[in-house]
Amino acid sequence: MEAPPAPRVVKLVLRYDGAAYSGWQRQPDRPTVQGALEAAIAAVVGANVAAHGAGRTDAGVHALGQVAHFETDSKLPAATFVRALNANLPDDVVVVGATDAPPGFHARFSALRKTYLYRFHVSAERDPLLRRFSMHLRRAPDVLAMRAAASSLVGRHDFRSFASEHQDEKDSVRTLHRLRVLDRPLGPVIVATANGFLMHMVRNLAGVLLRAGHGSLAPAGAGGPAAEAARILAARDRRVAPAALPAHALFLWRVDY
Amino acid sequence: MEAPPAPRVVKLVLRYDGAAYSGWQRQPDRPTVQGALEAAIAAVVGANVAAHGAGRTDAGVHALGQVAHFETDSKLPAATFVRALNANLPDDVVVVGATDAPPGFHARFSALRKTYLYRFHVSAERDPLLRRFSMHLRRAPDVLAMRAAASSLVGRHDFRSFASEHQDEKDSVRTLHRLRVLDRPLGPVIVATANGFLMHMVRNLAGVLLRAGHGSLAPAGAGGPAAEAARILAARDRRVAPAALPAHALFLWRVDY
Repeated sequence: MEAPPAPRVVKLVLRYDGAAYSGWQRQPDRPTVQGALEAAIAAVVGANVAAHGAGRTDAGVHALGQVAHFETDSKLPAATFVRALNANLPDDVVVVGATDAPPGFHARFSALRKTYLYRFHVSAERDPLLRRFSMHLRRAPDVLAMRAAASSLVGRHDFRSFASEHQDEKDSVRTLHRLRVLDRPLGPVIVATANGFLMHMVRNLAGVLLRAGHGSLAPAGAGGPAAEAARILAARDRRVAPAALPAHALFLWRVDY
Repeated sequence: MEAPPAPRVVKLVLRYDGAAYSGWQRQPDRPTVQGALEAAIAAVVGANVAAHGAGRTDAGVHALGQVAHFETDSKLPAATFVRALNANLPDDVVVVGATDAPPGFHARFSALRKTYLYRFHVSAERDPLLRRFSMHLRRAPDVLAMRAAASSLVGRHDFRSFASEHQDEKDSVRTLHRLRVLDRPLGPVIVATANGFLMHMVRNLAGVLLRAGHGSLAPAGAGGPAAEAARILAARDRRVAPAALPAHALFLWRVDY
């Protein structure tokens, strides 16, 4: 007996403005990005199909390069899915690429690394034109102090101190490959790359870095912010880290396979 | 008899996201930027006061540096108005500066020049993160052809061809000091500076430049877009120019006195 043919897997890259969504993950009676995407796929292929995302972004979080996949027996060329899905998606979600993936590809489980951005803008008064996609700071944080704190967090660690209290995964060990603080004209941008992130982890990391930048984590200078960040990490206790920063300044930038 | 003391005039600089407003100008039963500002001033000074804007931006148009003034006998230091007004303004409108202006200053009538920006972004698919503040183009326009058309429009002219059909001003002569097309990474940006603009004038100018850039105003090359733009200008007839471009990509950038 021959094995049945492996189903066709289509890989999508998506950008979205998450403001109007209760996050990625499908929920009854709430608008979600997964729900919007699955409705568009159903309209195009004529069947209800599950779309699996690489990152389960929270309510209000945006994406520049979320990846999702779905299985289909549609014969449409992959590139045609871009236009066809976009014709069925709302204005705040767009498919920027579609390709055929190897059998067995899974947007989430095949991912090697994910990269998120957390964006700040510094201005004396709040900025109506930046408010949707960036966190407002009245005072410029000290980027060197932020980098000092970040240096203590990179590597393979138990990140329980930076997880949500609602985190339900038992294994909170992750490898944080990169935690950089870019000094951009509008304000700092945090770039975080890991093999995976715990719930709220980037926003919790950003909260520690911001406290470091504002001098309220520990006095700047030798040992200060770096030692304090290391202490929070080592505590493996959510209660020792500052509150998570808001969702609207967080972007899932890219997923590497 | 002594003349009564001249009233104190406070000059404000404002930024706003115009998406939620039926334009600058106060209207009964509709949200307007002037209405929001006057409500904030009333809350701060305890009296209803008219706020006069330099540019009567249309519905959906944004501002980076709108100027407004109001008269008051309040003794608050000018700088204090910034925080006090912002505490009473919605998220999408902010006062970035407040100064005492000389007696007789009028935000609109004292203005020497106004500058608007019109922004495009070029991408194969629409962009959910840029859609609110920039016009999407699938194809990159030819910036040199846009500049050729622009060169025919700079100067003191009767701009009736570029006015709204609802324009009610009899004098449609304006001096267009500058009409530049910047070649930016995301797409072209049009910068228009004039001693004053007719209703819809920037969006109509941008419409002609975009047609030039897409090769549909006239064939590129010697005489093409420049001659056709000059012909439209000389016609002094709204019906010969292309349709106005959408409001959401237009910004009142600055007002010079």
